[in-house]
Amino acid sequence: MNLHDLIRELREPAKTKIVLLVADGLGGLPLEPGGLTELETARRPILDALARDGVCGLSIPVLPGITPGSGPGHLGLFGYDPLQYRIGRGVLEALGIDFHVGPKDVAARGNFCTLDASGLITDRRAGRPSDQRCVEICRKLKTIRDPQVELLVEPVSEHRFVVVFRGDGVGELGEHVNDTDPQAVGVAPLEARGTDPASQKTAAAANRFVAKVRRVLKAEKDANGATLRGFAKYPKIDSVQEVYGLNSAAIAVYPMYKGLARLVGMEVVPDLHTLQQQTDKLKELWANFDFFFLHYKYTDKKGEDGDFAAKVKVIEEFDAAIPAIKALKPDVLIVTGDHSTPSTMKSHSWHPVPVLLWGRNVRTDAVTEFSERGCLHGGLGQFEAKYLMTLAMAHAGRLAKYGA
Amino acid sequence: MNLHDLIRELREPAKTKIVLLVADGLGGLPLEPGGLTELETARRPILDALARDGVCGLSIPVLPGITPGSGPGHLGLFGYDPLQYRIGRGVLEALGIDFHVGPKDVAARGNFCTLDASGLITDRRAGRPSDQRCVEICRKLKTIRDPQVELLVEPVSEHRFVVVFRGDGVGELGEHVNDTDPQAVGVAPLEARGTDPASQKTAAAANRFVAKVRRVLKAEKDANGATLRGFAKYPKIDSVQEVYGLNSAAIAVYPMYKGLARLVGMEVVPDLHTLQQQTDKLKELWANFDFFFLHYKYTDKKGEDGDFAAKVKVIEEFDAAIPAIKALKPDVLIVTGDHSTPSTMKSHSWHPVPVLLWGRNVRTDAVTEFSERGCLHGGLGQFEAKYLMTLAMAHAGRLAKYGA
Repeated sequence: MNLHDLIRELREPAKTKIVLLVADGLGGLPLEPGGLTELETARRPILDALARDGVCGLSIPVLPGITPGSGPGHLGLFGYDPLQYRIGRGVLEALGIDFHVGPKDVAARGNFCTLDASGLITDRRAGRPSDQRCVEICRKLKTIRDPQVELLVEPVSEHRFVVVFRGDGVGELGEHVNDTDPQAVGVAPLEARGTDPASQKTAAAANRFVAKVRRVLKAEKDANGATLRGFAKYPKIDSVQEVYGLNSAAIAVYPMYKGLARLVGMEVVPDLHTLQQQTDKLKELWANFDFFFLHYKYTDKKGEDGDFAAKVKVIEEFDAAIPAIKALKPDVLIVTGDHSTPSTMKSHSWHPVPVLLWGRNVRTDAVTEFSERGCLHGGLGQFEAKYLMTLAMAHAGRLAKYGA
Repeated sequence: MNLHDLIRELREPAKTKIVLLVADGLGGLPLEPGGLTELETARRPILDALARDGVCGLSIPVLPGITPGSGPGHLGLFGYDPLQYRIGRGVLEALGIDFHVGPKDVAARGNFCTLDASGLITDRRAGRPSDQRCVEICRKLKTIRDPQVELLVEPVSEHRFVVVFRGDGVGELGEHVNDTDPQAVGVAPLEARGTDPASQKTAAAANRFVAKVRRVLKAEKDANGATLRGFAKYPKIDSVQEVYGLNSAAIAVYPMYKGLARLVGMEVVPDLHTLQQQTDKLKELWANFDFFFLHYKYTDKKGEDGDFAAKVKVIEEFDAAIPAIKALKPDVLIVTGDHSTPSTMKSHSWHPVPVLLWGRNVRTDAVTEFSERGCLHGGLGQFEAKYLMTLAMAHAGRLAKYGA
């Protein structure tokens, strides 16, 4: 039996409130083997107190050894099996720039590239133009029209952009189209091909688009061509309301996380820029929702920067923001990350992520420190992230007994 | 590959004996966060000695956060995936009153209700009659005859009864029939409807039965109507003998657990009333079986009563009964529960359940206390209950190597 079907069968209404605090890329590694991680180094009196009074564990974002991107990382935390629900790169890029992909759209990630006189790729990233140049080049691409589909182009950064094919009038567009980036230089970009009639329409539109890009950009030195990858439609995902019966709000600063929350049907709060604004907004909206997802980006950002000390510092800022949330008296308060981002690796990693769950009916364990080592002895054990929402629902008194 | 197919492939004969002691609802919670649970509070020298010499862990009855009823809880312990094998409420109610549901039967749980002059429900539980009244009212229902199916009515308790539709002569009766309880007052009971021809026969018989109930009970003040729910046939489940090759005996006092054991093909010992009788019977039958399931009810009962001190006391009584069992020299002795029943919650819960496995070839761990906290550090880790039987079989030398 599918986990979501089980939840739908067992869920029952309640007035309880659940808060999910996600410190992106929370888990880390020590600078030297045997040393302390970023989280272990940080002063975190609030997190430690919650760990002492709550129950801790480690969450495995996807499967042991699998490093998740932000999409699978968050889907798991929202209770969606990240191996079952997949978000194509085109759509994820669109989410990241706050571009709303509609049901008739196929989105693809575009890369500007440099082509020689015979059309062979000499630089797959077009000499990495500045973000400003990217915007300027995209402005030219926005002039391209197609006789059959609507085209929407948006800059992302450097050599990256998003193109959306909107199938108004020509029937459904499919997403089963190969990447045209050959992942090599000295060869021509690949032709787009669709594996079914609907996807063949998309592929044909993609090939017409790329041909016109070359004409529009023929005067450019570096960015005189483009490759496309990750053709994807907006996935159909049952909402958090449909599955869990939770009226939910996403309190995030960055477009990517707002987009991921929108994907699972959360109400996304606009115009937030600081953690203070986020906690203020949480308080303001307290009466209106059952479930609050608050996303904190900087733990991941400092990890990606490879800045151990800075990651320690932003963890401390995060810790200091929690009392304002706890003061609202949530029934269940969860603190975790969507994955680890060790500053020594400057990237996401597969390492399990510390989790604490504080609230009603928790079976406390001996953990008194919210850290990678502490959580290893926690009562939640190590578990796949997709079960976190089930645990939240149980502790919030929102799940009936299974079977008599 | 299905777990049972794997077991069938690997199992090999042996003369070893396995004892599974189930203290129902064993796991608990402290009265105050950070305090001791019922099990942790109890004096339990025998359990602690077994924990020290054996290997411990925590079992997850269904999935993290899912609270099981007695049916799924026990199926899991018997090695049957509780999400794959489901027992309908009607059959479970019948098991609970020791009513043997046959292959041609569809059982339903009945609720007496109060109907007003226009047939609308004013009380879904008919003012909660006494158990004695329930027996009296059911006596009237036993007079009802149907031209097509045989009807069997048995009282359960208060407003609850079981009705069995036996399809002799009219061909198979199906179980796909909706509940007729509208789960609300001020509305009429629902019509029963079947989703396939066999179930339509059941639904028609159910509607005829309910109409006759109203006639038979029209002089009653409170219990003048009935609703039906949980229409179910006796599930077809491969027996413990077929799957594990174990000749097994169930030594239980309460009908529900005898019924669950019968469901998986165990030989059920009748007429037991005390734990002393249970352990005496175990000794008496020692030579006749490979596998013994002994069920102890009172840990759950005291938890459901919300009586922390009483639950502590019955755990101590359970502990004291174990030496007589250990003296028989079982090859594998397992002590666990089918779920947790924290007295603070007065109900079953989702919290993992302490497990100890004592016997040949155990890899001992550092656990010296059989408690929720102790088991958290046990060698079995946290695992889904359905794997417990595989572990028992392995330690009993009853499973061959998988692959060469």
